[in-house]
Amino acid sequence: MPTKSKIIYTLTDEAPALATASLLPIVRTFASTADIEVDLSDISLAGRILAAFPERLTEDQRVEDGLAALGELTKDPEANIIKLPNISASVPQLRAAIKELQGQGYDIPEYADNPQTDEQKDANARYSKILGSAVNPVLRQGNSDRRAPAAVKAFARKFPHSMGKWSKASRSHADYMREGDFFSSEQSITMADAGDVRIEFVANGGQPEVKKELSLEKGEVLDSMCMSAKALDAFFEDTLQDCKESGVMWSLHVKATMMKVSHPIVFGHAVRVFYREVFDKYGELFDELGVNPNNGMSSVYEKIKTLPQSKQDEIEEAIHACYEHRPEMAMVDSVKGITNLHIPSDVIVDASMPAMIRNSGQMWGRDGKQKDTKAVMPESTYARIYQEVINFCKTNGAFDPTTMGTVPNVGLMAMKAEEYGSHDKTFEVQADGVMRVVDAAGNVLMQHDVEKGDIWRACQTKDAAIRDWVKLAVNRSRQSETPAVFWLDQERAHDLELTKKVKEYLKEHDTDGLEIHIMSYNEAIRFSMERMIRGLDTISVTGNVLRDYLTDLFPIMELGTSAKMLSIVPMLAGGGMYETGAGGSAPKHVQQVEQENHLRWDSLGEFLALGVSLDELGIKQDNPRARVLAKALDKATETLLENGKSPSRKVGELDNRGSHCYLALYWAQELAAQTEDAELAAEFKPLAEALSANEQKIIAEFIEAQGKPAELDGYYHASLENVAKVMRPSATFNQIIDGFKK
Amino acid sequence: MPTKSKIIYTLTDEAPALATASLLPIVRTFASTADIEVDLSDISLAGRILAAFPERLTEDQRVEDGLAALGELTKDPEANIIKLPNISASVPQLRAAIKELQGQGYDIPEYADNPQTDEQKDANARYSKILGSAVNPVLRQGNSDRRAPAAVKAFARKFPHSMGKWSKASRSHADYMREGDFFSSEQSITMADAGDVRIEFVANGGQPEVKKELSLEKGEVLDSMCMSAKALDAFFEDTLQDCKESGVMWSLHVKATMMKVSHPIVFGHAVRVFYREVFDKYGELFDELGVNPNNGMSSVYEKIKTLPQSKQDEIEEAIHACYEHRPEMAMVDSVKGITNLHIPSDVIVDASMPAMIRNSGQMWGRDGKQKDTKAVMPESTYARIYQEVINFCKTNGAFDPTTMGTVPNVGLMAMKAEEYGSHDKTFEVQADGVMRVVDAAGNVLMQHDVEKGDIWRACQTKDAAIRDWVKLAVNRSRQSETPAVFWLDQERAHDLELTKKVKEYLKEHDTDGLEIHIMSYNEAIRFSMERMIRGLDTISVTGNVLRDYLTDLFPIMELGTSAKMLSIVPMLAGGGMYETGAGGSAPKHVQQVEQENHLRWDSLGEFLALGVSLDELGIKQDNPRARVLAKALDKATETLLENGKSPSRKVGELDNRGSHCYLALYWAQELAAQTEDAELAAEFKPLAEALSANEQKIIAEFIEAQGKPAELDGYYHASLENVAKVMRPSATFNQIIDGFKK
Repeated sequence: MPTKSKIIYTLTDEAPALATASLLPIVRTFASTADIEVDLSDISLAGRILAAFPERLTEDQRVEDGLAALGELTKDPEANIIKLPNISASVPQLRAAIKELQGQGYDIPEYADNPQTDEQKDANARYSKILGSAVNPVLRQGNSDRRAPAAVKAFARKFPHSMGKWSKASRSHADYMREGDFFSSEQSITMADAGDVRIEFVANGGQPEVKKELSLEKGEVLDSMCMSAKALDAFFEDTLQDCKESGVMWSLHVKATMMKVSHPIVFGHAVRVFYREVFDKYGELFDELGVNPNNGMSSVYEKIKTLPQSKQDEIEEAIHACYEHRPEMAMVDSVKGITNLHIPSDVIVDASMPAMIRNSGQMWGRDGKQKDTKAVMPESTYARIYQEVINFCKTNGAFDPTTMGTVPNVGLMAMKAEEYGSHDKTFEVQADGVMRVVDAAGNVLMQHDVEKGDIWRACQTKDAAIRDWVKLAVNRSRQSETPAVFWLDQERAHDLELTKKVKEYLKEHDTDGLEIHIMSYNEAIRFSMERMIRGLDTISVTGNVLRDYLTDLFPIMELGTSAKMLSIVPMLAGGGMYETGAGGSAPKHVQQVEQENHLRWDSLGEFLALGVSLDELGIKQDNPRARVLAKALDKATETLLENGKSPSRKVGELDNRGSHCYLALYWAQELAAQTEDAELAAEFKPLAEALSANEQKIIAEFIEAQGKPAELDGYYHASLENVAKVMRPSATFNQIIDGFKK
Repeated sequence: MPTKSKIIYTLTDEAPALATASLLPIVRTFASTADIEVDLSDISLAGRILAAFPERLTEDQRVEDGLAALGELTKDPEANIIKLPNISASVPQLRAAIKELQGQGYDIPEYADNPQTDEQKDANARYSKILGSAVNPVLRQGNSDRRAPAAVKAFARKFPHSMGKWSKASRSHADYMREGDFFSSEQSITMADAGDVRIEFVANGGQPEVKKELSLEKGEVLDSMCMSAKALDAFFEDTLQDCKESGVMWSLHVKATMMKVSHPIVFGHAVRVFYREVFDKYGELFDELGVNPNNGMSSVYEKIKTLPQSKQDEIEEAIHACYEHRPEMAMVDSVKGITNLHIPSDVIVDASMPAMIRNSGQMWGRDGKQKDTKAVMPESTYARIYQEVINFCKTNGAFDPTTMGTVPNVGLMAMKAEEYGSHDKTFEVQADGVMRVVDAAGNVLMQHDVEKGDIWRACQTKDAAIRDWVKLAVNRSRQSETPAVFWLDQERAHDLELTKKVKEYLKEHDTDGLEIHIMSYNEAIRFSMERMIRGLDTISVTGNVLRDYLTDLFPIMELGTSAKMLSIVPMLAGGGMYETGAGGSAPKHVQQVEQENHLRWDSLGEFLALGVSLDELGIKQDNPRARVLAKALDKATETLLENGKSPSRKVGELDNRGSHCYLALYWAQELAAQTEDAELAAEFKPLAEALSANEQKIIAEFIEAQGKPAELDGYYHASLENVAKVMRPSATFNQIIDGFKK
């Protein structure tokens, strides 16, 4: 499908989709000067639903399966995809979309709660491929390359976000297990040949029970590790005692959303230990009621509602009695009294720890005041980096966004490279015994003695993914002229296997003149931070967990948010996908458009992704003009940020559309001013002048359009024509952009 | 003078000299079996006095100049010297010794307060070479090699000293200047050729004033650096404010004794800032009284004694008023109310910081309670390592003497290698202007803009010393099979010059299979500590300051004291000097002998030094039997420690002499039991048996001798015969030792 000089721009849902109607015409106009086509590929929820039922639609109604086509495209070395945030549909969202489409005359089936008929079953089977995180697994066919775009970094340096001052006498710290956790028990093997293995549990005195069968590739790395429930409980108790003695606040930081099997269990242990007396006394009752501590104390409060008021009061009193002898706990919402142990998803380590570090190492107490905190993170594998950061901030003070360097990340993500993501290979052990990995010939490859309640997991990492990751790191180091550090801990079994491969695959590349290191996590983060405070950049080359953690940690220090990061997936096949800022599809943004025709969506992520998309197209396809466009776009973005032309949240002020107008203006001005391509400059000069001359008029037209309800003819599936009408209200602007001919 | 197989044992003063009378016969007996002579060389204060006035003494009275002879010997590659602690005589000590010698009939002159006659002037000139630290400069003709002896380390592992628990929430930390100190201003050059330079001060608008002229060698490194008085004062004020806000105690840690020019000034600044209001109000009066804040608040209290009581009270009230608004200050003696700022020599950083770290990171407050402390150490060059240790202890807990590895040191000390020891090149700047180093041709080699009150200094390091230091590091790494780390900070000018030399001189050695690193101070100490808690050893290869600091820091963690360290000076000429434990000559020990004939002196240092002395003699002179003796001695020392046969402090219990008896017993037993040299074993079997059979009897004889005054016929110059009589009271033991014939 794709040819040279083609960029695929994804049509998604909600706010990003609305913004696209405004931005895409501008992008197409500018890109056309470098002979670049910008195609729109529909991967919206509605589009994916319609594509799933072609036989039920009329010829006119049928749509291409955009996602399937893009999936194919990821195998094309020329693929250049700009990927906007899309809906990961929950069931209610799916049903709403179905209803809307049916109302528009599309004969698509219902999503049944309990499918009975073959037809229902068939429909639900198709819908199951649309539900949830259905897009990323298809498109993320590569490792991850994330960095702070130059424009954003420059902006943060000039207009720094606030950073809480650190006291040298801060008592805050990270606390983690020293034994009995995944780190200390990790085992790892590399498959000499492709082969099948099975994960077995053997209860003491019992027969092997196969928990999972896996087909592994030659060179694939398989890890197994175990967290002792007893050690975990003892650790939690120790941390609580320690806080009680030292007077610092207690807080728990896990990743229950992403590590969705192991960490809710870990969270549940914390709940049981903190409220030990409550669970000791009411354990049986809670079991009857279906209380699940893995869901936090909210589960207790919810389930006991069925009890008589007097019993409820008694239990709540018992809960409050715990607070008397336990240390103060960090609050998620001190106004509403929501503690750190209320809901497991409230404190997500990769966001909560940077927030704490940015906030002088403090969290909020019951009285709403900031306090020094013990950040409890049982898994020592990753927790140690936060302690290193905390010690660093105590010693050197808070990071300074105006001078600090940047730490981009190259993350091992391709081919579902696992670390925590091993949901189908993570088990809560049901009895004392042995968990083991056995090959087809019956050889035991790895084995752990386990006790009831222990958490055991295995993780797979494919050789080809590792090899590509090494290549990506070398390329990134070369292109950014920046040292790259592989974060590999020689005391960790998985990392030892990876180190062998890294050393081998590094030989495949020209690393002359590059600075490439292999360091333990603590060394690596310290090295990076020491450089950082000296204004120097350092690429972190990490596994999937650290990718996730670091691309929040450093951006939040550097930029105040991780949403402004450039997220690139260089495909294994050679193409590239440029993801625009995270942040969900923001239903509230759409509501505001519907009510008062103001779109607060910030297309910064799209600007940045487009810059890289153009630049890489230019490099790969020897299209220097594309690179000139890219460079000018980055400068324009920087000017836009500096001039404060990002969308406001308030009606009657500059919104997404107006912001696009400024982007077009600055972009055209940069192109007119640049000297690399005089012909192009001449071409853009009149455009720049026209936009500049009409700036006031255009903005007035944009503002005038606001303040009354916008007439969108659908939420999930508005017609493009109608959306374009709403999103392009400035006749003057449209005329200039559409009138620009090459 | 020296021939093969000769060990020079130094006769010094006071307790060590007494102990020598007991130990040396044993040593000679054992050494004789390996054809080793043990010669006694008199470098005692009395001996040095007598050697200075031969023309005034009779033939019989004249003595050899032992120190001069030893000085000569240091140039002999076969030199093997066991150096015991000697008196660094103050004037009162010198006078006492003169008086004693005169009383014994030696016609030596007085030491005149104000020499008038030529004779007096001549005498004082001779005495000036005897006063103070007169021995070490003559003998320390090499770099420094310090390590924890195996026996001592093994003992500490089995019988660990107490270590204060560290709280993860500890607020203690080190605080140091981030700008304006020596580190940030350091400049350094290496002399391409030998040449003269001069240090000049040029006041603004004034003429150059030569402060010092230096003749430098080819390849010599010359540094210059400057500490801003303003920055220093601002730093002190900041630390005080910070403590006031955070509530941690304030403490100052300098090295006013050794850095005897620069650090009293630094100390004085701290005093002036802490008691700012007092010095503001009474500054003129204090000047009149001769108060010197560089001597601490003791100077104020002393000098105001001449004032009327009411004025004294007023000033003391003003002092106390400072405490009201200043943070709590760490106390040196909370019972006596002696603060950290009372006397500059009370808190010596290299001892005080390890003590604080060993003590849970805490010092004592006014109420006698341990508290978290800000350890203020203005000079960032070295202070940073303590912060690294503190962060490490917060993260990993206190060091565990039962499992921790060891960090021996190879220190750059030869040819007076300077860092802080640049007393003749350190200046307190008297006016605003420029301090500079100018070569003979008038070229400005280095220069600093300075302000009145700034502290400027230069330091010299000779090329040959550096070259030898590198060799010593490689040899030590090879012999100990231990990684060696050169502590060289690439952000420090001096270290950059040294790094070039280290890299060059490393090429002169076979480093195959050795692990040799160059790391910044923080990296190096972290690397060493990470290995340490894993039971691994790491050699620190450092300059003279870090040598001094680290050979207290690590030994105090590992052994509970630095006195048990083996201190070797491998001479530049090839010989070796083995220094026995520091700790002064302990006049109180002699008093106890005089009163109740109990010598509490612990000869452990001598045992350890002798072990190395024998071993190195064995290696150098291909004398395997010497090495067998050495190995057996080390084992014997270990047994002695384990069996608790070190001297007691109480009369009627085992003392120095009895301890020597056990050493002889265990040493003989080890030699009888060893299988490397069957002949030697056979030789020692009867000795071991005789000692063992007579153990009770001998010890009884030793104990019996105690309890009454010992008749020493001199303090500085007792006769050897008489001392031998006192120190060898067991006829049974003497008979066995003296009767042992090869």
